[in-house]
Amino acid sequence: MQQGQANPEFGSEFREQLDLLLARRRDVRRFRTDPVDEELLQSCLSSFAKAPSVGLSEPWRVVRISSDAAKNAALMNFQSANNDALNGYSGEKAKTYAGLKLSGMQDAPVQIAVFCDEETEKGAGLGAGTMPEMRRYSCVSAIMQFWLVLRAHGLGLGWVSILDPDKMHADLNIPSSWSLVAYLCIGWPEDFTDTPELELAGWETRAETLEYEER
Amino acid sequence: MQQGQANPEFGSEFREQLDLLLARRRDVRRFRTDPVDEELLQSCLSSFAKAPSVGLSEPWRVVRISSDAAKNAALMNFQSANNDALNGYSGEKAKTYAGLKLSGMQDAPVQIAVFCDEETEKGAGLGAGTMPEMRRYSCVSAIMQFWLVLRAHGLGLGWVSILDPDKMHADLNIPSSWSLVAYLCIGWPEDFTDTPELELAGWETRAETLEYEER
Repeated sequence: MQQGQANPEFGSEFREQLDLLLARRRDVRRFRTDPVDEELLQSCLSSFAKAPSVGLSEPWRVVRISSDAAKNAALMNFQSANNDALNGYSGEKAKTYAGLKLSGMQDAPVQIAVFCDEETEKGAGLGAGTMPEMRRYSCVSAIMQFWLVLRAHGLGLGWVSILDPDKMHADLNIPSSWSLVAYLCIGWPEDFTDTPELELAGWETRAETLEYEER
Repeated sequence: MQQGQANPEFGSEFREQLDLLLARRRDVRRFRTDPVDEELLQSCLSSFAKAPSVGLSEPWRVVRISSDAAKNAALMNFQSANNDALNGYSGEKAKTYAGLKLSGMQDAPVQIAVFCDEETEKGAGLGAGTMPEMRRYSCVSAIMQFWLVLRAHGLGLGWVSILDPDKMHADLNIPSSWSLVAYLCIGWPEDFTDTPELELAGWETRAETLEYEER
């Protein structure tokens, strides 16, 4: 498949839609409680197998949080970490923080924890010698692709990171060589806004363009 | 923009093309030396501004490696780290490793280093209290989107991680609060294969499906 500028494999209409997909993605925290069709979910999860990974190590370890006990443990973990975080702010910032909805864990019908196997033998360590964090970055790459595929179906994903990873590890009985990369809430969103909720709430704004340095 | 299963915003044709994009992405190490149009590159770089970031912290710091001195320093860094890595293998694995082309740094017309500002005040630390690595994960998310946008234009990206981050830091005179996330080679690829080069070379194979555990 020789490629070049003259005869691109993907057309301009696709690229415009891809831009739109990135622009409308969103980190979702408000979910409808109706279930996600299992076949559709599995089809979206299959995007993991297409993700890049350092040395083809495929270090992602996906744990579906299905039981009430596991969901409750994760929710309590978040609530405790979120309280601690709130205590770190004061004044207006604390007031704004307290008003934010930072997880959809009470509503999202699908919840998934993604871990990285830091000791996988797959890939024989290629590319991860000087930068072992590349294995975790491979997991993030897979999550990002999964996120976009979900969004293309109209499904929302919310990435929760206000968590104590050690506690989650213990609560879910996770192998010691795995490290927590992400806790993902998935489902049909109440809506998709063009602007992130954090921006609407006045927490922070986004840069409109990318500035870069040169060497 | 109310969303749901009945009236999806993105059609099935787009989703099929998106699946194809993920399947044909590739980590490119063999580049043609002809230049990448600057306007096209800037348009692809603009995808960074649409990337998710923890607390809207946008911690990515992009450094374009333009001078011969900077390119040479990066190349020597890679060659040294790659020699060290080769010495860690023996027998057949060493023979295979020695035959792999693991960077396109000698040919790629565009080279970019992506750093994470670990101390940015943007986002006021939201979501990064218990997991400060979320800032680096935000950078990886932005890189993954950039990668897909490039690929949709027929452009290739190769992610080099066989590098000494401290040496790169010193060589490029990078602020102390930034950490290296990725060194990216970008350009028109010699070709795009359906199968990763590491798989063709017999280094490692990919799983066909995602296995997951349940809790």
